[in-house]
Amino acid sequence: MKLLKEKILDEGVALSDTVLKVDHFLNHQIDPVLMVEIGKAFKERFASEKITKILTLESSGIAPSVMAGLEFGVPVIFARKRKSLTLSEGLLTSNVYSYTKQETNTIAVADKFLSDEDSVLIIDDFLANGEAAHALVDIVQQAGSDIAGIGIVIEKSFQSGGGKLRNAGHRVESLARIASLEDGKIEFLSEVHA
Amino acid sequence: MKLLKEKILDEGVALSDTVLKVDHFLNHQIDPVLMVEIGKAFKERFASEKITKILTLESSGIAPSVMAGLEFGVPVIFARKRKSLTLSEGLLTSNVYSYTKQETNTIAVADKFLSDEDSVLIIDDFLANGEAAHALVDIVQQAGSDIAGIGIVIEKSFQSGGGKLRNAGHRVESLARIASLEDGKIEFLSEVHA
Repeated sequence: MKLLKEKILDEGVALSDTVLKVDHFLNHQIDPVLMVEIGKAFKERFASEKITKILTLESSGIAPSVMAGLEFGVPVIFARKRKSLTLSEGLLTSNVYSYTKQETNTIAVADKFLSDEDSVLIIDDFLANGEAAHALVDIVQQAGSDIAGIGIVIEKSFQSGGGKLRNAGHRVESLARIASLEDGKIEFLSEVHA
Repeated sequence: MKLLKEKILDEGVALSDTVLKVDHFLNHQIDPVLMVEIGKAFKERFASEKITKILTLESSGIAPSVMAGLEFGVPVIFARKRKSLTLSEGLLTSNVYSYTKQETNTIAVADKFLSDEDSVLIIDDFLANGEAAHALVDIVQQAGSDIAGIGIVIEKSFQSGGGKLRNAGHRVESLARIASLEDGKIEFLSEVHA
């Protein structure tokens, strides 16, 4: 996705070989026009799939997901992150280990929002080691819903998440795939969809 | 706002005299079409104000804010909630006491995103005791930005937040104002904008 890649090059910062900071337009300050284009790009990529719901994770997944929800004409559910859960009645839960923060969070979705008749598009802002996406997949499977695919705004292709999800048979579509952040230089994977 | 009030009556649940559950369309599952209409309604209410940025709070404020940002053609910043902050360099912070959770959270915004040239519309999903709105006001004032107004999706008018903010001279526009949740019955305040 051209506009997204330009934004990443113009305003993104490679903080280290693994950390890309995009807080100017995606995960702290949000560019609403870019979000509309991201929603359209997901619609284009998954146009052939039957999709009844979009599932994402608070907070940075919400803006791109709502724009995608508008394109597909379906509701968006955002999983909530909790440090711990004492009560889990009525909730589908899964655990996410954060390598950045070195802690495990529980993510939760009310079970009333997903059924075995749903076909779910999972959307998230970043894909690195795949921990968050894996937990979202787990929740969709617990609900007995189909997984239509996984839409990612920025994939760090040099980390293992994308490979693991694709090997597990999921259709993963990433709007920008980063090949490397070495030496503070942002390099994209060349691909057909570019 | 008629569509919002209908949604609240159809899908909202008065869990107690003070708690309104709207997780079907606003703060867990999101109705993207309703969010578009909410964005337009904020634009209509604040059409005469100069607005350069929208500030909200993760997570439920994000969807309505991004749609409003699209209408106003301005970026959206979402403040992050933290249990505690060890490092606050480069951050504007304020504290929010949650009556529901009986705990204090710090909310934080990178100071690079707000300047004394900004005129900020604060948006949030709920207004009850005004704790969150007050902390957002505090952050905008720390940045030296002007406050163009405060846009609220659902105000519980029987709680003190709206009165306090209006008495402090802020322009508060709420798209739905709840007069009472007593006996499980949702009643709106009658108003001109209805």
